[in-house]
Formats: sequence, structure tokens, C-alpha cells
Amino acid sequence: MPLTPLALDLTDDVTSLTAAVCDIESVSLDERALADAVEAALHLLPHLDVTRVGNTVVARTDLGRAERVVLAGHIDTVPLTVEPANLPTRRVQGQGGEVLWGRGTVDMKGGVAVMLRIAHEVREPSRDLTFVFYEAEEIDSIHNGLLLVQQQAPELLADADFAVLLEPTDARIEGGCKGTLRAEVSTKGIAAHSARPWKGHNAIHDAAEVLARLAAYEPVTRVVDELEFREALGAVLISGGTATNVIPDRCVVTVNYRYAPSLTEQDAEAHVREVFSGFDVVVVDNAAGARPGLHLPAAKAFVEALGLTVEAKQGWTDVARFSALGVPAVNFGPGDPNLAHMDDEQCPVEQYTACEQALLRWLA
Amino acid sequence: MPLTPLALDLTDDVTSLTAAVCDIESVSLDERALADAVEAALHLLPHLDVTRVGNTVVARTDLGRAERVVLAGHIDTVPLTVEPANLPTRRVQGQGGEVLWGRGTVDMKGGVAVMLRIAHEVREPSRDLTFVFYEAEEIDSIHNGLLLVQQQAPELLADADFAVLLEPTDARIEGGCKGTLRAEVSTKGIAAHSARPWKGHNAIHDAAEVLARLAAYEPVTRVVDELEFREALGAVLISGGTATNVIPDRCVVTVNYRYAPSLTEQDAEAHVREVFSGFDVVVVDNAAGARPGLHLPAAKAFVEALGLTVEAKQGWTDVARFSALGVPAVNFGPGDPNLAHMDDEQCPVEQYTACEQALLRWLA
Repeated sequence: MPLTPLALDLTDDVTSLTAAVCDIESVSLDERALADAVEAALHLLPHLDVTRVGNTVVARTDLGRAERVVLAGHIDTVPLTVEPANLPTRRVQGQGGEVLWGRGTVDMKGGVAVMLRIAHEVREPSRDLTFVFYEAEEIDSIHNGLLLVQQQAPELLADADFAVLLEPTDARIEGGCKGTLRAEVSTKGIAAHSARPWKGHNAIHDAAEVLARLAAYEPVTRVVDELEFREALGAVLISGGTATNVIPDRCVVTVNYRYAPSLTEQDAEAHVREVFSGFDVVVVDNAAGARPGLHLPAAKAFVEALGLTVEAKQGWTDVARFSALGVPAVNFGPGDPNLAHMDDEQCPVEQYTACEQALLRWLA
Repeated sequence: MPLTPLALDLTDDVTSLTAAVCDIESVSLDERALADAVEAALHLLPHLDVTRVGNTVVARTDLGRAERVVLAGHIDTVPLTVEPANLPTRRVQGQGGEVLWGRGTVDMKGGVAVMLRIAHEVREPSRDLTFVFYEAEEIDSIHNGLLLVQQQAPELLADADFAVLLEPTDARIEGGCKGTLRAEVSTKGIAAHSARPWKGHNAIHDAAEVLARLAAYEPVTRVVDELEFREALGAVLISGGTATNVIPDRCVVTVNYRYAPSLTEQDAEAHVREVFSGFDVVVVDNAAGARPGLHLPAAKAFVEALGLTVEAKQGWTDVARFSALGVPAVNFGPGDPNLAHMDDEQCPVEQYTACEQALLRWLA
């Protein structure tokens, strides 16, 4: 651990700054060095009030503008690859041009670098700005820095009109997000020696009907605020049995329901219980999605300024936390989301520049 | 570890002797003390030639009789209960009379005690006798003492005409045993994020058809040497999935086929492959059963002498090892097999006496 923070130079071009942010390792729960560097760099900017909550850094302008927008991004990453490690970053020539390769180049230190560049370049923004660089998004949500700010310093977020989460979207605008429900659907049997199964009852055989309902399930696509959210219900885990010579007395199918943001958590639970009626269903977790809110003025202005089409976000992201606060939010950031968490995570450098330029157009 | 073997007094009544055998702990791979005690007791009997192979003790008469029969039993047990331990044994009053309670009272130190009593009492048996007290039946078969004798000293067993395995049968005669095959039936999918399942393929959903075939399977009952062997095919384990937000790319159903002894291992494998045609099937292990061989003279004489009815043995036992040597074999021993391995393993003392008396009638 260095005694003085590793320095970030916000006058660098956005790709070099992304590389510098990536090269300060910050696997979840080990974000202190990067949070220190971000905080130190922002303290040099006189137009920002900087607050630290754990390893989350919040910086705000206070210019009395009619609207306030949040730019938010997490500073942690999933673990590095072991051998060789996918850090430090490398700039390499790809088929379609230059790419930056390494952990965090997609998820989501490019977005963090764009936020830092905007903080440095836009001293008199058209809207008041709240930057949130937060810890621990990649792990259990009890550690999530955005959630901790909501709990410990809600005034830092409560006055926002609109939020942009700079998660990777291939530099497209993705509105809202689907909800996600996880449930355990289980069957009960009676254990017996497998040489005499007629003395017991096989719980795995009973799960045939659970899987048959899943295989036959026809998901719907719902249009919410003009965007299409494609639902899904499927098994993600199955386990049953205790030993190779015992008739299994329990089988558990863990299912995941991804539902449109027009459904409440209660709607989603009722639907899953209906699909698996007759079986024991325990909801393990359930988080509603986020409506894209693209009819709201701040959102319309964002979309118009960027001149991009908008698609529905299929995966659950922290935009739902803003949605729960009544703040409409979109996802917009550099990097192909399909490469997030991959060993060869990498991003065309032109996407960093494109995102930076788009936000400059909107906010300058 | 005592320097001198714990002593067994073969003049004791069979219940007291069972208690003494149980009270010398002999969890699998820790049978030395009991093997020492058995060997020492048998060395005192001048009509027996005693051989030791590892912790297995073989004792033979050599009287030039027309027939030779084997009495065999394993001397190991499954582990004791932890707190309180189910040893030392206790004689308690049960609803139907006195019972002996504790580890090994069913599986199968009552049978071992009966063998020791026969060895002591029958100095001039009507048939030559081979006693096999063997180690490590309750664990992986590479340690099995009966198998080790077959491999290292086959001449000790090769001249047998008939074998009685004193495994618990509730003091009834159970002929032969079913074979057992274990196979992994698996499905392959394509991993994807569970928010976008249409980019992958769900292997657990594909397993619906595997479970449907199992649930619909109609097992047959086959008559072999006049005994009914009731077959069974069922799932014993199922597992699939890697994480709660990933479409599973693999699901494995472990199935167990218990088949009549008229089928070879090849027949059994072909049947399982036919039932799961279209799926990836890997046979994990496969052991043929044992025909009861009750039409053979030695077996007929045994059944007639005991005056008991004969049923088919449903579970696989070491009688199959004798069958593979061409030696017909039956199971006959004190104790309810449903109580084997249970925490409150216990046996009515009258069963020890009944088995001892039955074998005395046959051999004296």
C-alpha cells in the first residue's frame, strides 16, 4: 500500500487515463488505493465539493442550475486472471483499430475515466453535476457503495433529476433495466436404499414436471416507455440426491425470472408461483427493474443531445437503485458488455473518445 | 493399541460373543485389533488351519469331505455415532423381547459371532468348512478383504462348492443378488448471462426429457432360478449450473440401474443406453449380480436343512464375488437389513440364537 496515493492526471487523453485507472488494481473490497487517487485528483478542482463515504467518492457542483444530473460508475473490478495476470493494460492493434486490453477496460474503468475527464473539462456545466465513484458493485449488494451512500448520506443523491450510469453498453444508450427474481422450486421424496426404491419416493423424478414447465415456458416481451423488454424464465441451478445408493428425498431447482420493469416485485412473485403451482416455491431474492423514463424532460434532452437510438437494458444494473429513488436513469458507457468479466476483456479506444465527446456535447 | 490381543471366548453364548465382537471397535481400515482377536481364538482350535491375509483371517478344515462350504462375513463396520457413541453395546428390553443395541449388532458382527461359534462347536462337520473373516467391506472395493484373498491366495477359496454370506437378512435365506450399474446421463448447453438466455442454451431444461423417461420407466421383475428379482432404474443424483446469473451449460443426472442376475454387465449397459438414447451416457461402475443357484445340490441341502423359505436378495452383496468364481452363494444372517448403518442399530437376541441353531443343524 503506497503512503502517498498513486496519481491520476486528468489532463491526459481519455484512453491514457483509462489505462492509468485500470493499472491501479481495485478488485472488490480492495478499492482504497483507487479511491484515494480519485479523491486526490478531484480535490484539485475548485468547482467541486468532494465527499468520501468509505471508498466511495462523491463530487458535486453547486451552480444553482435548473436541473441536476448524476454521472455514476463503480470503481471495483472482478478478480484478475491468475497466470498471466490481465494487468497492466496493453494498447494493441485489433482488427478494427486500436484496443485497450486488460481487467477493467470494459467493466468499467473506461466509464470512470470519462467521468474524470468530464469533471476536469466542464467547469461550467449546463446542468448541476453529481459524480459518484462507488465501491463494491461486483459482489453482494450489502457492500455496494451506491447503496451505502443512499443509506448514510441520502442528501448527496436526493436532489437529482436524472442519472447516467456509465456501465458498458457499447457506447449506446440503454434505458431502464429488467427486474430479477430468484426462487427455489423443490420437491420432497422419501429416502430408501436404491436397491429397493419401492420403499421410498424419488424427489428427482418429481422434478421432471418442474423442468417440463420450464422447457415449455413461453416468455413475453413487454413494451415499457417505448422500449421492448424481453422477459425470461429459466433454471440456473439444480441439485438433488445424497449418495449413489440412496433414493433422493429432495431436489431443488433454482430458477431466475427476468421481468419487465412494468411489473412490481409482487407481480413477479405471483407469476412464478403460478407457473410452479403445486410445488414448494421459496423466493430467494427479488429486485424490481427500472423504467427507462424516457418521456421525462432530462432524459429526452440527453437522448437528443447524443443523437443516438435507445434500446432496452436486459440485465439488472444499479439504474434500478436510482429508479427506486424516483430518479430516471439510463446506461451509457464504453465497452462491449459481453466482454465484461472475460479473461480477454478489451475495448476499442474509439469508444472511450466517443463517450467522452457525447457527454461533453450534452453538458458543456 | 493393546500389546496383547483383546480376547474372545468362543465358549460364550452367541449373544455375549456378539457383544464382545462389537465392543472391539473395527471401523473400516481399523480392523487390526479384531482380526488379532479372531486369529488368536481360532489358533486354539486344532481342527482348523488358519491363514492371515492383511486383516482378513481364513480358517479351513481338511477332513476330505465330499463337499466344501464357505461361511463368510466382514469384520468392519461403518463409523460410530459421534455423541454419544453407539458403543459399547447394551442389552435392553425391547417390545418384542431382549435386543442387543449398538454399532455392528446388525451389520454384521452377529454373523461373525455365529461363525466363531460354529468354528468352536462343530469339530467334525458334515462338509469341509472354510471360514472367511474379512476386512473392509463397507468402503471402496479396492480394500475389500474378500477380493484381496481372491487375488493373493485364490487357492483358499477355489475349492468351494457353496457359500453362505452371513450378512443380515432377518434370519431368512436370501438367494443371489441383483447387479448394479451407475451411469451419468448428461446434457450440454451454451453458457450465457441469464438476462439474455436467447444467447445461450439451457442444459437443465434439456434434462427434462431425461427425468421424464425415468418417471415413465416401467421396471420389470425377472424370475431367476425360481426367485423374483424386482428391477429398478432411477436417478440418485442430479447437478447442473455454475452460478445464479448464468444459463447452465451442463446438467448431469446420475442414474442407478439394479438388474436381475440373469443379465450380464453388457446387457445392463445396453439397456441403459437404449433408455437414454440421444443423450450422452457414461457408465461409472457396473457389477453383475449373482444367480441364487438354488438348484445346485449344496444349496438344496442348505435350504432343506434350515426349513426356511427363500427370497431374492434385492441389494448387491459380496455373494456376487462368489458367483463370479462359479460358487453359488446365499445370504443368511441375523439382523434387520433396514437397520444396518442406522444410529440405533439393534437386533433381537433370538435371531443370533436362531441362526446359530440353523447352521448347527445343517453342519453337525
